Amino acid sequence: MTTDHNKENLYIGIDLSSNALRGAVVSSRGEIIQDLRADTEQESAQDLLARIIEAVRSLRAEAADRVVAIGIGIPGLVNRATNRIEVMPNLADFSDLDLAGEVSRETGLPVVIDNNANAAAYAELQAGAARGRRDVFFVTLGAGIGAGLIINGQIYRGATGFAGEFGHVTIDPEGIECACGNIGCLETIASGPNIVRRTRERLYRDRTSSLSRLSMPRDREFTAEDIAHAARDGDEMAQLMMERTGMFLGIALAAVINLLNVEMIVLGGGVVEAGDLILKPTIKETRRRAFPPSFASCEIVIAELGPSAGMIGSALLARDQAG
Amino acid sequence: MTTDHNKENLYIGIDLSSNALRGAVVSSRGEIIQDLRADTEQESAQDLLARIIEAVRSLRAEAADRVVAIGIGIPGLVNRATNRIEVMPNLADFSDLDLAGEVSRETGLPVVIDNNANAAAYAELQAGAARGRRDVFFVTLGAGIGAGLIINGQIYRGATGFAGEFGHVTIDPEGIECACGNIGCLETIASGPNIVRRTRERLYRDRTSSLSRLSMPRDREFTAEDIAHAARDGDEMAQLMMERTGMFLGIALAAVINLLNVEMIVLGGGVVEAGDLILKPTIKETRRRAFPPSFASCEIVIAELGPSAGMIGSALLARDQAG
Repeated sequence: MTTDHNKENLYIGIDLSSNALRGAVVSSRGEIIQDLRADTEQESAQDLLARIIEAVRSLRAEAADRVVAIGIGIPGLVNRATNRIEVMPNLADFSDLDLAGEVSRETGLPVVIDNNANAAAYAELQAGAARGRRDVFFVTLGAGIGAGLIINGQIYRGATGFAGEFGHVTIDPEGIECACGNIGCLETIASGPNIVRRTRERLYRDRTSSLSRLSMPRDREFTAEDIAHAARDGDEMAQLMMERTGMFLGIALAAVINLLNVEMIVLGGGVVEAGDLILKPTIKETRRRAFPPSFASCEIVIAELGPSAGMIGSALLARDQAG
Repeated sequence: MTTDHNKENLYIGIDLSSNALRGAVVSSRGEIIQDLRADTEQESAQDLLARIIEAVRSLRAEAADRVVAIGIGIPGLVNRATNRIEVMPNLADFSDLDLAGEVSRETGLPVVIDNNANAAAYAELQAGAARGRRDVFFVTLGAGIGAGLIINGQIYRGATGFAGEFGHVTIDPEGIECACGNIGCLETIASGPNIVRRTRERLYRDRTSSLSRLSMPRDREFTAEDIAHAARDGDEMAQLMMERTGMFLGIALAAVINLLNVEMIVLGGGVVEAGDLILKPTIKETRRRAFPPSFASCEIVIAELGPSAGMIGSALLARDQAG
């Protein structure tokens, strides 16, 4: 492609997760021009702020005058009234820090902050699997379960900015306790760490089974992503775990289809690297549980932008909302 | 009140339920000027159409020149693409009939049709419990369970017009079969007929109990509304049934709060005549299950307009959407 990027505005998208910072310079069409990644485990809010500013400086080095706005996706909730981070369970306490304001002061650019699942949903809408759609539900299965809801082509944030807490929908009213205080949340079954927990329990219970062909990492504990890869490589035990995860996910997605009659559900996150092995059982259970005419008008697909979705979406939110 | 209704436009709202037609002439502020009611059991689509046209003529008799539009709320789904009734499980088959077109031809007025739970939600938004709100979820517990979702002050209908199928959200993945094909839907537990079923089962199982102080109707089977009234009158068995119904409702409402972060949930339908006896256990279970910051920003209240909500809302939809 020979697009001339010299003439157009560029945007920086930063995607903060519990253990890494990813950042990119992104074109107005959502193409990544340049990117970087840094590990960020267990840093304080002040240290993370310094890392973000450092990342922005590094990304701006070559195209300083064309970067016009910055978007930051965070693994937590942004209170729309205060534009402050309200809940961020897996990261430092940002409650005393005006993240958007600080980054803006340091860089001289307008800064937009949003939940990183909202950012990824926006990326899939603008430049990924949901291009041209209006009513879309995006789910990401990772360390937690995040979701972004697109209504009439816009991110829907709810009354105070907390919409999309899909991971805490009750799947099993008599299930196990969740960190949120509820019991039987989808997250207690289908988040990455809980897929690993369920797999370990099953291996222990049924000792004749094993993740036989799983090319297990030797230097660290295995993750849900490793299980997804093993499933794709033909491991039957891993495939069973993907199938059952899809089944639970389908129960919750049927509720979304029934309530919202969205035209598309996009599944993202490391776990969906299992592809059809998780997609097919998810669709099967959703079909079984959703109101038939609503199911018939909804497509369920796998995300296109992979782990880049968060930074692309943050940049595109900066394009559309910074001012 | 001495409002002069002579100078303003009026609207006719028709509310069709499985066994009755209610109709009213409504002012632009949602006040009922005049109303009527007719029983309509087991009539054909053509007969129902004739009844609607007859009701409109009767309601227009005194104020013909000021009635400028008609709204019709139906107990089914309207396909937004075709403006036809797609699914109406408890009424005649309307699939071959262009209801809006026929009534418009016969009356010379623009006609809007919508699901009756959407109409009731709109009435509560414009002239009832949710006045001045933007993001509201309205639930009606009756023969079925209906819901209307208000987003940014507008009815949200979804991709094809089927949003709000709250009654078919799965509450118990191993529950009993629902007419929709799923198992363990909220409707299999908390709709009027299922409240009656559960009450009968409980009375049979635990024969020392009885609906002792329930002033049971002698000429017909008792209904969920009778149980609600008995609860209000102090019957402990009826109160227990309301409490347990509220608990199941709370599980499903927590999912709505988590997904949508609405600022208000409005409960309507005959069952909520039990008042606090159903509201309090509903709120208690919702608090237990919802994501805490989202629960904290949502009020749960009982509807203000009672059984008039459907016709008022249909009239106000005609006010705002006919043209």
